[in-house]
Amino acid sequence: MYELGVVYRNIARADSRVAEGLGALGSATVHEAMGRVGLMKPYMRPIYAGAQVSGTAVTVLLQPGDNWMMHVAAEQIQPGDIVIAACTADNTDGFFGDLLATSFQARGAVGLVIDGGCRDVKTLSEMKFPVWSRAISSKGTVKATLGSVNIPVVCAGMSVNPGDVVVADDDGVVVVPAALAKKTLDAAAAREANEGEKRAKLASGVLGLDMYKMREPLEKAGLKYID
Amino acid sequence: MYELGVVYRNIARADSRVAEGLGALGSATVHEAMGRVGLMKPYMRPIYAGAQVSGTAVTVLLQPGDNWMMHVAAEQIQPGDIVIAACTADNTDGFFGDLLATSFQARGAVGLVIDGGCRDVKTLSEMKFPVWSRAISSKGTVKATLGSVNIPVVCAGMSVNPGDVVVADDDGVVVVPAALAKKTLDAAAAREANEGEKRAKLASGVLGLDMYKMREPLEKAGLKYID
Amino acid sequence: MYELGVVYRNIARADSRVAEGLGALGSATVHEAMGRVGLMKPYMRPIYAGAQVSGTAVTVLLQPGDNWMMHVAAEQIQPGDIVIAACTADNTDGFFGDLLATSFQARGAVGLVIDGGCRDVKTLSEMKFPVWSRAISSKGTVKATLGSVNIPVVCAGMSVNPGDVVVADDDGVVVVPAALAKKTLDAAAAREANEGEKRAKLASGVLGLDMYKMREPLEKAGLKYID
Amino acid sequence: MYELGVVYRNIARADSRVAEGLGALGSATVHEAMGRVGLMKPYMRPIYAGAQVSGTAVTVLLQPGDNWMMHVAAEQIQPGDIVIAACTADNTDGFFGDLLATSFQARGAVGLVIDGGCRDVKTLSEMKFPVWSRAISSKGTVKATLGSVNIPVVCAGMSVNPGDVVVADDDGVVVVPAALAKKTLDAAAAREANEGEKRAKLASGVLGLDMYKMREPLEKAGLKYID
Amino acid sequence: MYELGVVYRNIARADSRVAEGLGALGSATVHEAMGRVGLMKPYMRPIYAGAQVSGTAVTVLLQPGDNWMMHVAAEQIQPGDIVIAACTADNTDGFFGDLLATSFQARGAVGLVIDGGCRDVKTLSEMKFPVWSRAISSKGTVKATLGSVNIPVVCAGMSVNPGDVVVADDDGVVVVPAALAKKTLDAAAAREANEGEKRAKLASGVLGLDMYKMREPLEKAGLKYID
Amino acid sequence: MYELGVVYRNIARADSRVAEGLGALGSATVHEAMGRVGLMKPYMRPIYAGAQVSGTAVTVLLQPGDNWMMHVAAEQIQPGDIVIAACTADNTDGFFGDLLATSFQARGAVGLVIDGGCRDVKTLSEMKFPVWSRAISSKGTVKATLGSVNIPVVCAGMSVNPGDVVVADDDGVVVVPAALAKKTLDAAAAREANEGEKRAKLASGVLGLDMYKMREPLEKAGLKYID
Repeated sequence: MYELGVVYRNIARADSRVAEGLGALGSATVHEAMGRVGLMKPYMRPIYAGAQVSGTAVTVLLQPGDNWMMHVAAEQIQPGDIVIAACTADNTDGFFGDLLATSFQARGAVGLVIDGGCRDVKTLSEMKFPVWSRAISSKGTVKATLGSVNIPVVCAGMSVNPGDVVVADDDGVVVVPAALAKKTLDAAAAREANEGEKRAKLASGVLGLDMYKMREPLEKAGLKYID
Repeated sequence: MYELGVVYRNIARADSRVAEGLGALGSATVHEAMGRVGLMKPYMRPIYAGAQVSGTAVTVLLQPGDNWMMHVAAEQIQPGDIVIAACTADNTDGFFGDLLATSFQARGAVGLVIDGGCRDVKTLSEMKFPVWSRAISSKGTVKATLGSVNIPVVCAGMSVNPGDVVVADDDGVVVVPAALAKKTLDAAAAREANEGEKRAKLASGVLGLDMYKMREPLEKAGLKYID
Repeated sequence: MYELGVVYRNIARADSRVAEGLGALGSATVHEAMGRVGLMKPYMRPIYAGAQVSGTAVTVLLQPGDNWMMHVAAEQIQPGDIVIAACTADNTDGFFGDLLATSFQARGAVGLVIDGGCRDVKTLSEMKFPVWSRAISSKGTVKATLGSVNIPVVCAGMSVNPGDVVVADDDGVVVVPAALAKKTLDAAAAREANEGEKRAKLASGVLGLDMYKMREPLEKAGLKYID
Repeated sequence: MYELGVVYRNIARADSRVAEGLGALGSATVHEAMGRVGLMKPYMRPIYAGAQVSGTAVTVLLQPGDNWMMHVAAEQIQPGDIVIAACTADNTDGFFGDLLATSFQARGAVGLVIDGGCRDVKTLSEMKFPVWSRAISSKGTVKATLGSVNIPVVCAGMSVNPGDVVVADDDGVVVVPAALAKKTLDAAAAREANEGEKRAKLASGVLGLDMYKMREPLEKAGLKYID
Repeated sequence: MYELGVVYRNIARADSRVAEGLGALGSATVHEAMGRVGLMKPYMRPIYAGAQVSGTAVTVLLQPGDNWMMHVAAEQIQPGDIVIAACTADNTDGFFGDLLATSFQARGAVGLVIDGGCRDVKTLSEMKFPVWSRAISSKGTVKATLGSVNIPVVCAGMSVNPGDVVVADDDGVVVVPAALAKKTLDAAAAREANEGEKRAKLASGVLGLDMYKMREPLEKAGLKYID
Repeated sequence: MYELGVVYRNIARADSRVAEGLGALGSATVHEAMGRVGLMKPYMRPIYAGAQVSGTAVTVLLQPGDNWMMHVAAEQIQPGDIVIAACTADNTDGFFGDLLATSFQARGAVGLVIDGGCRDVKTLSEMKFPVWSRAISSKGTVKATLGSVNIPVVCAGMSVNPGDVVVADDDGVVVVPAALAKKTLDAAAAREANEGEKRAKLASGVLGLDMYKMREPLEKAGLKYID
């Protein structure tokens, strides 16, 4: 349930170095480190390939076809933030374009995640301002109805609280609650540490069946080989 | 972000009489009374027409293709509860059928809201056990991976906390946070009180344009009539 | 392209007896009689089974999440009209409920076709006010932005001009331009006239292959039977 | 890969009594008895609630927007058959209506499963000719391009061979290969035999946790209860 | 409603310099200049990034799975035209590939907008022949049933008349009626003129809240800041 | 219907040179050469543009949210194979990432086609290991339930048998049964042989109407030109 017409100015942001550390590991590793939870729905796609960012969440709740709150949110952005925009109803309108991006970038935002549409994607790509959205659409919006800024929102199926760490890359968007950020970073880093060695083994032809010792559990589960 | 492998046994349920009162008013009125928030996505549909229920939420987090936690949830049900089942990924498998419904009904549950599939819908209709789901599917599920019971979940795009009031009918499913239940009931009842008079006026041919005094604001907004 | 902020008060309606005649034949027969064009997309579904209506179109253009224009449209309804509501963006909000239905019914409307959401469907079913919609949703709407009434619209993929005949039943919604209504009625009636005889033949075991003389063209097209 | 332009006249049908036996048990039980495979995708829905049928498959491969092969298929129907229609591309046109249903029924077909659209649903409901389809649509079709009859097809994601048993009800559509039909019937019947006792226990308040002895494996998997 | 089996050879094209001017401004600016109408649905996507074109519409109405009319349309193309292809039913088949593109390009077409599928996208990208489509698909089509050329069509939810200006880029596809083209160009150019100044201000850290003087209306609407 | 818990070790692969030859011609040409059948649904998209591969199919049947069988499949890969992964239910989880890709590549696989999700797409692009999938998702998977390897599967709507040739490129994924591979290659090569000449003619301004001699059949079908 959403509180409407409010802007919370003081939010507790996760540690920015932890956020950066998580971003460097990427969404898949972070998602695994959290026990395979925290991922937004896979319909959220980057407007251009190759961006990989992380930041602390400034949240916005939008009304369908109305981007008024995006301007209100701009003022709340601090360097290192990522804006997370939810909407009270499914909507693909182009809530965000190059002018807002210029403003967000001037405030220090590292990107936008929006459960709605985005436009001016060619200019945004040139500006290197990454956006993850459910749609790309020229459709403009009005400024008529209040939503809120920095309240807890559900964006693309995932709960986000202001100040949470959000990691976004080509594979998707993962939310790490501020209170779990440090612990998740440690777990993700440990996980990553093993990857190089595993990769080398697999590249040399060792099978995952042997490396992960799966043959016995598979046999127990009843797997049968037929020649 | 979800905590996995836990069952919270003691949850603070909203007042059952408040829950009943909200249920009698229906999802549309309750949704308006909350300021037009709290509604699950409209892909959630009842398995049969005409059911209108409300209850206090027992939440379940499922893994795709796995209904193990539904059995764990059954034990946590108290009379007047409604079970709210979310899943860690979009999935339409038939997590729920007539045997589980028999168990849920025996425990006093008034219904199920599941962001997944449901089966045995003919029997469930005969049992008068209402289910709101994203799909109907014979597809059975395994019992292999842990989820959780009575943690905060996101179900069909809406946050639900254990103990919240959930109102479900032919129009959809609305979530009322426990802390706002009484206030929402009052607002919804006040709203409903005017409806009879309004309906009578409209039935007699009075236009909403006049009853709601819309002509002036429409003119100000620039509406033009052309003969 | 849509003209915004206008209401056309004088529209040329198709002959009401022709509209009734088309309605009696149903959407499938009328659609065939027009050469298999004129059908709205099949995501448009009736809120209850069994309704079969036809009327002359009063068109409405809505903005997403905003039902202001529905009230403006109500005043333009004349007995025998059917309201056709389009939206400037895909939107499933509940633009229409029992109060508006009471008003529409009082004005003589025979139904509503809306490329958006509808609510209060249980009450609407009891009132026998049929609605064809893309969604059912409790989600309420604001009254903030102008659309138009009685301009040409695109509803569920089909062009509709004010005054056109619209035929709606369990199979879908068909639009017949006013200028073609009489000719279409004649063609549809002729088509219908043959159906009883065909049905009797088929029921007696005669095959369509023989009744429609398809064996030769199938053989020419290269069809081979293999024993 | 499909062979086009052919009709196989002699197909090996599964035993009709076995088909009937499977139909009586319903799609969910049969699907479980096969090891949870064989189900068509859940977008396949009955045109009216309550039908439960089973039959031996006569398969048809259609071209999009073209129902020529349905007439060819009619001739191949024997009493107790169910027609399974696939299409070479996703298409929601109304390939099937009351005239074809009259012919199919005259030939002894028990129903139709079509990965496409269906029309005349009100008449079909009155005729009690059940259809499972991906859409309902008035859209008519042409008769111009060859498909095939009684070749192996993929319908709604599932392979179907001519003569297979198909079980369809409110929960979905399950395909049982002819060679496995008897064995599946035995497994399904055994499964069903236990259901009454289980239902009685659950209705009396026994929990699935105890009845299925889940407490120990849940604990082993790490489930924690928190008061 | 569509007229079938006709080709209109003489259509009134919008002024080509106006069309070019609109194309240079892009779909988002043009869409705003028209009052936020005229946009096709956002499922229409370019087959490669970066193309930005505008032209005068040659329209085609296709039948599902049939591209016969594309060849008929080729003859009607004049330099500076853009082909707009609609279909009588939702269909993703590959109606268009490199051979047709060679022909269209030879006739002077600047691109294709098709509410259907497209294939040979690698070759089309190399040829720099831009296509906006609802799908990419190898699926070939037949040449069996008539549609029409240069009749009014509905493409991806938007009405298009032959000769209208169509602007397409990475953000989407906008239709400008020929009669409004000059006026829209003037409005769009005026709009664009201010963008540079706005962008500079926002880049310097000025907030949209101040630049657009939103603080007062937001306060009036009831927005509350909470510290 | 699927056989679960089995791995077939000896499969009859199509001739590798034939597979290569088909790959060089591309999915559209091969699809046409087979009579316009064999194409997977167009929701299957490459994770990066420009890849064009063909191989002999190693098939995998997955359970939703579970990638155990992918490791089992790795051992069955031989140089020149392409892995075709189906799932028992619609699921977008990230079953496949860079570690498995390293292993598959070490075994000689030329790519993966998966009716599910894929992750680590940036790394996979750098590795030049092409994947066609229905989704991109960071969502990890468990290893708990058996599927099968090298059984016949339905992947994205198309039947695939182990050893079949699969051709995948930017236009989609086509399956050529092993028994038809040589014949299809001959037909596709013949088809391709004419394309250069046709392209040159069309580029010079000759119309398809004339080159394909369509004017007469169009006239017969009733096409009318209106000036």
